[in-house]
Amino acid sequence: IIRLYHICIAAISVSLPVNFLDHTQHKGLAVAVFGVLLCKLCGMVIAPNPLPFSTDSENKQNWMILALFYYPALYYPLLACGTLHNKVGYVLGSLLSWTHFGVQVWQKIDCPKTPQIHKYYSLFSSLPQIACLAFLSFQYPLLLFKGLKGTEKSNATEDLNSSYYKDYVKRILKKKQPAKISTSSTEKPKLTQRIIDAVKAYIYTPEDVFRFPLKLAISGVVSFISLYQMALLLVLLVVPTLQSARMGVDEEIAMVLSGFKIELSPDKAEVVRIVVHYIWCVEVSYISAMTLACLINLAMLMRSMVLHRSNLKGLYRGDIYNVYNCQRSIRPSRPALVCWMGYTSFTAAHLCFGMIVQTMVFFLCLLITVFLIIMPVFHGQNLILFKLLPFWLMLLLAVVLQHITARFCFIKKTAGTRDLDNRGSLFLLTYLLFPVNVLIGVLLGLWRMVITALFNIVHLGRMDISLLNRNVEAFDPAYRCYAHYLKIEVSQSHPVMKAFCGMLLQSAGQEGSAAQRARDAEEGIQLVQEKKQLRVSSAKRARGHWQLLYTLVNNPSLVGTRKHFQRQTTESFLNGSLNRTAKDGSKKEAGTKEAEEAASN
Amino acid sequence: IIRLYHICIAAISVSLPVNFLDHTQHKGLAVAVFGVLLCKLCGMVIAPNPLPFSTDSENKQNWMILALFYYPALYYPLLACGTLHNKVGYVLGSLLSWTHFGVQVWQKIDCPKTPQIHKYYSLFSSLPQIACLAFLSFQYPLLLFKGLKGTEKSNATEDLNSSYYKDYVKRILKKKQPAKISTSSTEKPKLTQRIIDAVKAYIYTPEDVFRFPLKLAISGVVSFISLYQMALLLVLLVVPTLQSARMGVDEEIAMVLSGFKIELSPDKAEVVRIVVHYIWCVEVSYISAMTLACLINLAMLMRSMVLHRSNLKGLYRGDIYNVYNCQRSIRPSRPALVCWMGYTSFTAAHLCFGMIVQTMVFFLCLLITVFLIIMPVFHGQNLILFKLLPFWLMLLLAVVLQHITARFCFIKKTAGTRDLDNRGSLFLLTYLLFPVNVLIGVLLGLWRMVITALFNIVHLGRMDISLLNRNVEAFDPAYRCYAHYLKIEVSQSHPVMKAFCGMLLQSAGQEGSAAQRARDAEEGIQLVQEKKQLRVSSAKRARGHWQLLYTLVNNPSLVGTRKHFQRQTTESFLNGSLNRTAKDGSKKEAGTKEAEEAASN
Repeated sequence: IIRLYHICIAAISVSLPVNFLDHTQHKGLAVAVFGVLLCKLCGMVIAPNPLPFSTDSENKQNWMILALFYYPALYYPLLACGTLHNKVGYVLGSLLSWTHFGVQVWQKIDCPKTPQIHKYYSLFSSLPQIACLAFLSFQYPLLLFKGLKGTEKSNATEDLNSSYYKDYVKRILKKKQPAKISTSSTEKPKLTQRIIDAVKAYIYTPEDVFRFPLKLAISGVVSFISLYQMALLLVLLVVPTLQSARMGVDEEIAMVLSGFKIELSPDKAEVVRIVVHYIWCVEVSYISAMTLACLINLAMLMRSMVLHRSNLKGLYRGDIYNVYNCQRSIRPSRPALVCWMGYTSFTAAHLCFGMIVQTMVFFLCLLITVFLIIMPVFHGQNLILFKLLPFWLMLLLAVVLQHITARFCFIKKTAGTRDLDNRGSLFLLTYLLFPVNVLIGVLLGLWRMVITALFNIVHLGRMDISLLNRNVEAFDPAYRCYAHYLKIEVSQSHPVMKAFCGMLLQSAGQEGSAAQRARDAEEGIQLVQEKKQLRVSSAKRARGHWQLLYTLVNNPSLVGTRKHFQRQTTESFLNGSLNRTAKDGSKKEAGTKEAEEAASN
Repeated sequence: IIRLYHICIAAISVSLPVNFLDHTQHKGLAVAVFGVLLCKLCGMVIAPNPLPFSTDSENKQNWMILALFYYPALYYPLLACGTLHNKVGYVLGSLLSWTHFGVQVWQKIDCPKTPQIHKYYSLFSSLPQIACLAFLSFQYPLLLFKGLKGTEKSNATEDLNSSYYKDYVKRILKKKQPAKISTSSTEKPKLTQRIIDAVKAYIYTPEDVFRFPLKLAISGVVSFISLYQMALLLVLLVVPTLQSARMGVDEEIAMVLSGFKIELSPDKAEVVRIVVHYIWCVEVSYISAMTLACLINLAMLMRSMVLHRSNLKGLYRGDIYNVYNCQRSIRPSRPALVCWMGYTSFTAAHLCFGMIVQTMVFFLCLLITVFLIIMPVFHGQNLILFKLLPFWLMLLLAVVLQHITARFCFIKKTAGTRDLDNRGSLFLLTYLLFPVNVLIGVLLGLWRMVITALFNIVHLGRMDISLLNRNVEAFDPAYRCYAHYLKIEVSQSHPVMKAFCGMLLQSAGQEGSAAQRARDAEEGIQLVQEKKQLRVSSAKRARGHWQLLYTLVNNPSLVGTRKHFQRQTTESFLNGSLNRTAKDGSKKEAGTKEAEEAASN
């Protein structure tokens, strides 16, 4: 029956409208379909038969390759029905989503236990998929209902007419609160304040006047689902095995161990007890490591969202140097587009990969801590670190000595300035402590390695920061991809540009010519050119002109896309000066710029 | 006899002048003594008896702690004799260095073989020590000879009167060649040019108008010696053992292996041959890894020197933001001073630590490559990667497809600007390739981990770059130490300040009062104040005033050390504006600033 269902559904995948990643679309639909697809992918990699209608497990590889393209096609109608923007599409979408949902739920109720990995793995693994399908099954009828009631607006202009972009522009043009700036710049914040700020940077709080681009929203949800899938896989792969091993320990283990010449205890029952205890320790370590990795990745996901927002806002402002640490031109290019296409997939993959590495490393560290440090200390053995106590004390004393002398003997404060004092003694101390400092340096090197490795492992799942030194940031492939991705995102979904396009459309609509131009709404820059060609009355043209200049002043990255700005150098110079003007946000300066612009036109 | 010698020499260590890290001193002497001390430290850590007059190997730890302070004291007279700056000092220095040198050489000739680690380890290990002592034995008589001939100048003022600082200032005041600037800024350099530049950045070429501070020169030589010592230790610890193991393989090995149920071959001679071959492979891998680590560290040492120079020059210019990536005040503080004291030791320790880690990691990687990849490929086994060929091909095709479509279908060039085209197809492709891209993302994650780990391991021995992301750079303890160290070095040995002090001394010398102020030459800022207190004629005072202003304009970091600049904010602001002026280098603007300064005085 399942095969028949698959064949039927696959047959429906005919060519349908395809602009489903536009901002004009319903975010929820795209997000849910990508979620379903990811869950299917996870199941597919593990299953012995990637495709439901193949039982040939010999050519698994070829079936797998086929499946990688089959499933996107299978779920494609779910996505495409939403882009039709008419009642037929919504009816079809509702029917399809109900079918998918029903089949999925019925399949799980029918046989919840599967032989793969763990009897309940398949059930747990498909929970997010079912949730996504349920969302779709609810969303399509809702859209249909809205469509019947006629409350749905004309879709192509809906995005541009929404108040979001206007609100964004309004907020930019508002004067900044001077109080806010003064507190951040006058003096260093206190330690508690800094800690609170650091914690806040890891908590994502939605802002009314900021909305994520669709692709980024998809990436966020997909990352979350992949986190769930990975955690599930990591738990069910290892924990049940360890548990059954623990249950299965009997007195034969003493024989096996003595075969390896390991003599834990003369009493066999005692040996069993010790082995069970050890396995229990391993289990606890593993679960702790897994939980830690999960929590860290959740925190990182939140932090990423905060950083995405600040990066996007920064780039909308034209603050390129702060985001990229170098000057770049924000416009589509081949590598940027490739990175944009792959970004959602890459985030999910990096998160999964990072999670595996983190769990392994934390597990290893915990094992070492438990079996080489905590247990020997409890049993009073292997206390080599404590035997070297005088040595550690000596190193500590040397460090303290240097700090105290530096504070009280070698720095002289005179009239608010600081200078060195007692140079002779300083040099003597430096020389005498040279060998001790070498040993301290070795400890420092060890500490450095631990810190660096830990930082990089914790941030391995995040693409939005580079794991390398600031001068070679771009060699980190994930960060490079993110940087390119941001370029496309910013150049295509700039809120000020959108607000401008919306204004243009409105004024054009007043002249009754909105209908034939509604489809081109996204290509705002084309509209600017069309606008020019349009023969309108002088007053209208003046208003259009003013709107154009106004947008350019507040949104300097658009300047480069205009015809008469061809030379790179002039452009970047102008960007800089315009940028400064835009930051001031005062209309007066904008006015003078306007005059200049008008003169150059 | 050795004990007697040690007791005699140690008795000589009485309190002598101590300003041996001043720039007024002979660099060579300090460098050589630090080199000797480092060699001694290396020998000490390995030897069973750290001190020559103790044979009590039970309390090794306590003797070790004693030795850490004994050896600096032992070699201290060698350093201090040079700072006396008179004939008695040089005679004493010559005698001492001859004694040390003679004893060392005689000791090595007498018994070149020692039981520790390797029979020749002790001999090879003391080679740099002997070289340093030989240098001292040659240098002291030379100084004595110069002193007798009277060609040596008055030492305290020698540093300040040297033409180096004046040359430096002259070069700063020179106008920059406009041709040089235009080539670097107008367009992107070609690939070959960029490669050549990258290689050049790793080759240190001395510049006439730049001289390293003494402490940095010591660090360089000490790093080099520690590299040698570490390489020697790594070779002699492992290679002889492996070689003797290879020689000792006989037919019994087949018995032992079959005890572990490893059956390499039915023929015993064949088993021996295979095992010998395997051990030889391990040996070659180890030596390759060690050589690679050595070469990398040598390159890194050169690169460090290039970077030190550019950092110092940048800070001399007041270009703080580029060096630290944030705004900091360049003046002595407690942590900065502690870091300054430990810097030389830390560089040596980090280099040793980095070398061990590098050798281990490279060795492991080579072993994996040889035994898991190269050998199976030669024997035609374990070709799992090749069996998945269709899968790899599919991934490759997907990547190529994305690049080609991005290039030719989705990017539209109109009138010099670029925009997206065929949005529908782009979205469709993005959706369809989502599962494939997840798999590509996993490979990308793997690649990222390899790149990051490799970069960090290769740069582990360098303190002058942070191994962390640009936002958390300061959490890298080694880089933090380097940043602090630079602060002290720049605030104390600024060439423009020195040139100014030299000029002041010269003008003071013309009035015949040079003698009593010669000793204070280093404390240039004190002199500025003394100068003020001095009642000189009006013309003299005007000249002094002009010189002061001139220096401040060209050297804005000194502004903060003046009495009336107390507030941090004003200071940083002024630094910024002065800095811009200083970069222009034109005297006209300096003139206007002068007027402002004079007004504020």
